[in-house]
Amino acid sequence: MSELLFEQPLNEKVRNYLRLEHLAKQLDTHLEQDHQQRCFYPLFALCELTERCDFRSEILKDIDRQLSLESSDLAAFESPLIDQLLDYREQLLSAERPGIHLKQNRFISALRQRFNMPGTCCNFDLPQLHYWLSKPWHERQQDYEQWVNHFRCLLNPITLMLSSSRERCEYQPEVAPAGFFQRESTQALSLIRVKLHIDNGCYPTISGHRNRFAIHFVQFDQQKHSQQPIEFLLATCD
Amino acid sequence: MSELLFEQPLNEKVRNYLRLEHLAKQLDTHLEQDHQQRCFYPLFALCELTERCDFRSEILKDIDRQLSLESSDLAAFESPLIDQLLDYREQLLSAERPGIHLKQNRFISALRQRFNMPGTCCNFDLPQLHYWLSKPWHERQQDYEQWVNHFRCLLNPITLMLSSSRERCEYQPEVAPAGFFQRESTQALSLIRVKLHIDNGCYPTISGHRNRFAIHFVQFDQQKHSQQPIEFLLATCD
Repeated sequence: MSELLFEQPLNEKVRNYLRLEHLAKQLDTHLEQDHQQRCFYPLFALCELTERCDFRSEILKDIDRQLSLESSDLAAFESPLIDQLLDYREQLLSAERPGIHLKQNRFISALRQRFNMPGTCCNFDLPQLHYWLSKPWHERQQDYEQWVNHFRCLLNPITLMLSSSRERCEYQPEVAPAGFFQRESTQALSLIRVKLHIDNGCYPTISGHRNRFAIHFVQFDQQKHSQQPIEFLLATCD
Repeated sequence: MSELLFEQPLNEKVRNYLRLEHLAKQLDTHLEQDHQQRCFYPLFALCELTERCDFRSEILKDIDRQLSLESSDLAAFESPLIDQLLDYREQLLSAERPGIHLKQNRFISALRQRFNMPGTCCNFDLPQLHYWLSKPWHERQQDYEQWVNHFRCLLNPITLMLSSSRERCEYQPEVAPAGFFQRESTQALSLIRVKLHIDNGCYPTISGHRNRFAIHFVQFDQQKHSQQPIEFLLATCD
C-alpha cells in the first residue's frame, strides 16, 4: 500500500521541533550528496530560526521531563534512551549558543545576505561561492559538516524525542464522511498523524489546538475540498 | 589546467541577463534530475524577477540590434544565428507576460508564499507539496517543464545572445601586481571575464562601469586581499 504520512503539531513547541527536524533531515541529505549551492538553504533557515529563538532551555526542560517519565518506568531502567538523553543533556549544557560561530564566519555571512534576495547567487554576486563550489566535494563536505555540527546539540535531542513520542502512539482506522473529520480529546494533544492511501488523490489540511482538531481533505488536482468519504489511519500523540 | 571562470557585468542589462541565464541553468538541472522541493527556489526567483521587471521589450530591442549587426556582415547572411534570433523574436512577440500563468496557479502561489519564510516547507506547512513530492518523478518532471516553459521566450534569446557575445571576445594574459589590476577603455564595455588557476587560492572581486574597471584578488582562506602578483586571463566584451 502506497501511503502518505502527514503530521500536524498542536502546540508551538512541537511545531518548532518539527521544523528543526525537517531541516535536520535536509542537512543530512546535503551531507551525503553534493547539491552544490542548494545546501545553504536549510543551513541558513536553521541560522535564522536559532537566532530568533534560543531553543536550549526548552529542550533541556523537555529532556528532564522525558528522563523522569522514563525513570519511573521500571522496565526501562537501563534503557539506551536514558543514556542517550543524559548524553545529549550534557552536550546541551556545555554548548555555546548554536549558530554563534557561523555568525562570525565571513564567508557564511556574505552568502546569507545574498541568499535572501531572489536570483542573487550568481558568479558575480558571490565570487567566493563560485570559488568554494570549485573545491573537491570531500573538502566541501568537511566544511559543511563543521557548520552543521554547531547545531547538533539542538537537532539530536529533538529528533530523538520526536521519534520516541511517535513510537508511543498507535494508528486507528477512521473515516471522514464528506471529506471532513473532527475530534475532541480530554487529554491535551501535541501531534496528529494521518496516514492516507495515495490513490485518494487527497491531502489533509489539519487545524486544531490541544483538545480538539479538525481535518479537511483536499483533492489535489482541483485544489478543492473533497466531498467523498475518505478512509485514513489516525494517530494522536500527547 | 584547472581554471575558474568569473564574470562581471558592467551595465544593468547584462547584469539582468546573467541573473536570468544563471537561473535558466539551474532550472535545466532540476529538469534533468529530481532535486525534490529544491527545484522551486530558482523557479520562484524567476517569478519574482519577471514580476518586478518585464524584460520583453529590452530583449526585443536587443534581438533587433543583434539582427542588424549580423545582417551587415555579409558572410553571416545565411547564419543559423539569424534564423534562431528571428524565431525567438516571433515567440517573444506572441507571448503573454511570462509568469502570469504561474501567478494564477493556486498550488504554485501557496508554495511561493511559504518559501520566503525560513524553514517553512514542512509537511504541515504545505501538505500539498508533500503530496506533490510523492508523485512519480516523471509526472513531476512534466509539471516542472510546463512551469519552466512559460519563461522560455525570455531565457532562450538571453542565453543565445550572451553566448554569442562571449564568443566575440578573446582572452589575453595579464598580471595583477600586488593582487590589483585596473584598466580604462575608450569603448563602452558590458562584460568582463577573468580566468584564473585554482591554485592561486584566490577569487576576483570586480567593480567598474562601462569605461573602466578594477579587479581585486582575494585569498579565499583568509578572506583578505592578496598582496601577491596574480597571473590571469582577461577578456572584455563590448
